[in-house]
Amino acid sequence: MTQPRPIIIGVMGGGSVGETERLSAYHLGKLIAENGWVLLNGGRDTGIMDASAKGAKAGGGMTVGILPDSDLQETSSHIDIPILTGMGSARNCINVLSSNIVVACPGGFGTLSEIALAMKYGKPVILLNFKAGEVLDPFMKSGQLFFHKTPEGVITRIKNLLDGL
Amino acid sequence: MTQPRPIIIGVMGGGSVGETERLSAYHLGKLIAENGWVLLNGGRDTGIMDASAKGAKAGGGMTVGILPDSDLQETSSHIDIPILTGMGSARNCINVLSSNIVVACPGGFGTLSEIALAMKYGKPVILLNFKAGEVLDPFMKSGQLFFHKTPEGVITRIKNLLDGL
Amino acid sequence: MTQPRPIIIGVMGGGSVGETERLSAYHLGKLIAENGWVLLNGGRDTGIMDASAKGAKAGGGMTVGILPDSDLQETSSHIDIPILTGMGSARNCINVLSSNIVVACPGGFGTLSEIALAMKYGKPVILLNFKAGEVLDPFMKSGQLFFHKTPEGVITRIKNLLDGL
Amino acid sequence: MTQPRPIIIGVMGGGSVGETERLSAYHLGKLIAENGWVLLNGGRDTGIMDASAKGAKAGGGMTVGILPDSDLQETSSHIDIPILTGMGSARNCINVLSSNIVVACPGGFGTLSEIALAMKYGKPVILLNFKAGEVLDPFMKSGQLFFHKTPEGVITRIKNLLDGL
Repeated sequence: MTQPRPIIIGVMGGGSVGETERLSAYHLGKLIAENGWVLLNGGRDTGIMDASAKGAKAGGGMTVGILPDSDLQETSSHIDIPILTGMGSARNCINVLSSNIVVACPGGFGTLSEIALAMKYGKPVILLNFKAGEVLDPFMKSGQLFFHKTPEGVITRIKNLLDGL
Repeated sequence: MTQPRPIIIGVMGGGSVGETERLSAYHLGKLIAENGWVLLNGGRDTGIMDASAKGAKAGGGMTVGILPDSDLQETSSHIDIPILTGMGSARNCINVLSSNIVVACPGGFGTLSEIALAMKYGKPVILLNFKAGEVLDPFMKSGQLFFHKTPEGVITRIKNLLDGL
Repeated sequence: MTQPRPIIIGVMGGGSVGETERLSAYHLGKLIAENGWVLLNGGRDTGIMDASAKGAKAGGGMTVGILPDSDLQETSSHIDIPILTGMGSARNCINVLSSNIVVACPGGFGTLSEIALAMKYGKPVILLNFKAGEVLDPFMKSGQLFFHKTPEGVITRIKNLLDGL
Repeated sequence: MTQPRPIIIGVMGGGSVGETERLSAYHLGKLIAENGWVLLNGGRDTGIMDASAKGAKAGGGMTVGILPDSDLQETSSHIDIPILTGMGSARNCINVLSSNIVVACPGGFGTLSEIALAMKYGKPVILLNFKAGEVLDPFMKSGQLFFHKTPEGVITRIKNLLDGL
């Protein structure tokens, strides 16, 4: 008999972030792995992508990267399965479609586009210190969008969401 | 000798909007056409897409639609050149890459993703009554992002931007 | 009342071809334009793409290019409407979906992929001296795939097909 | 220290094939898994896709499916990691870009497009009883394209190719 598929948690976030954000993403990735979930992100060797993948590997997990590139030159060494799309930011759509739940760490307009696409596609979205303000606040009570200040808070939220999926 | 290419103005906005927003988009489309620019949008037969294309045709212009679909069933009858992508919201990226300037009318998360992608790709973005608040406000002084309340204001802004492109 | 949309003829073919193939593509593009059809191709400034667009402009027509690139650097100067996809050869799918009829001039594996995708999507395909042999021959009697040796033959075939669409 | 990434073998082939082809694909998938390689395919629950994934799971391996769909309804139950692209056959490009080596089992025009794209992108391509004839034969001596009649022959070829990659 085929086993049930692993849960895929998408972790979005900027390629250029500070050390605090990197540490938080590393910790989040580690907790995701320790819970037996697969980590999926944008796959590059910088920022939230690299840090969250590194954490997931430290936690003994599996990592999938959906790269905007057509070769591996800028792929994080912590990505097990690099999916090379060669389609730039149009791959953001694949990131959110392929994730059971999307977590948005601090980032710029790429991350904002992923939050927007995830909301549009009906995916649960958890903001980990991503502050969007007026444009997202009205959706905080929708049951689709959540805000947490710590990786631990995100993990508890994911567990609650998975109970209901 | 080959003539210079026409300017392409991308008009983004929601598929489900009120009559006020439709009228504004119609008027914007008409003014775009009357200025000799090509109107590009998401191509569907609803909301801002349909209204802006209808306006552009009333103004004697040409309209290009970048459809998420792989057939013409939901294409606006006011689109001259339907580009069928068959790739859903991943086509939002093509919308902004193919536009010289992006105008965002009121809309939902699809429109927000297009604003975000346009900002990421360095395109000038003009908000026509699209209120984003905290997440976009810091960029209002960047020279890349603008807010206007009327189609006429948008057109004046486009002219100023084209002088500088 | 909205006018009927123009017919879009997709012209596929290699980026590196000989002078005979360029001349044939130029002539084909010119005839497409003189018949009032829009020419759509891959948009680049080389080979069949550049030559067919040049011909279409000489014939007074309109040209649409679906570029693999995210900027205009390699776009043919004979393309009126450049659609920048930024998605490499994944854009081949858009080329065939957006064309009413696909014509394949001589080319390499990119062109072969477009023939295959067009056949898969049920589009009429006309080979203009593209020799595929065993893999395509069985479909020559299907009513979907045709072979012609001259641009004039292709044009006659398009007219027959349009009568039946 | 980060471990080296697993080798990804892409297995392409038709959604509608006979029992002989299914058995061959099952056997190929099993051998791929037993050699410690990841199997990547188009992810659907039919034909070569389903059979090769089933074989890989029987061999204790991991399976990645690049789906044309935006939901899991038609995903093979033997796929561990479904990547939902929502972009139809434009995802064929991702299949070949993400594979270290591409194996083409019997199939139709979708499979032919993947062979063509893989050749274009410089990937090694092994035909397992996919007969293409005139259009591919000239490349059989290029060192990029190979033909084998059995899964065992394909596996030996992959090993030889991996020695040289």
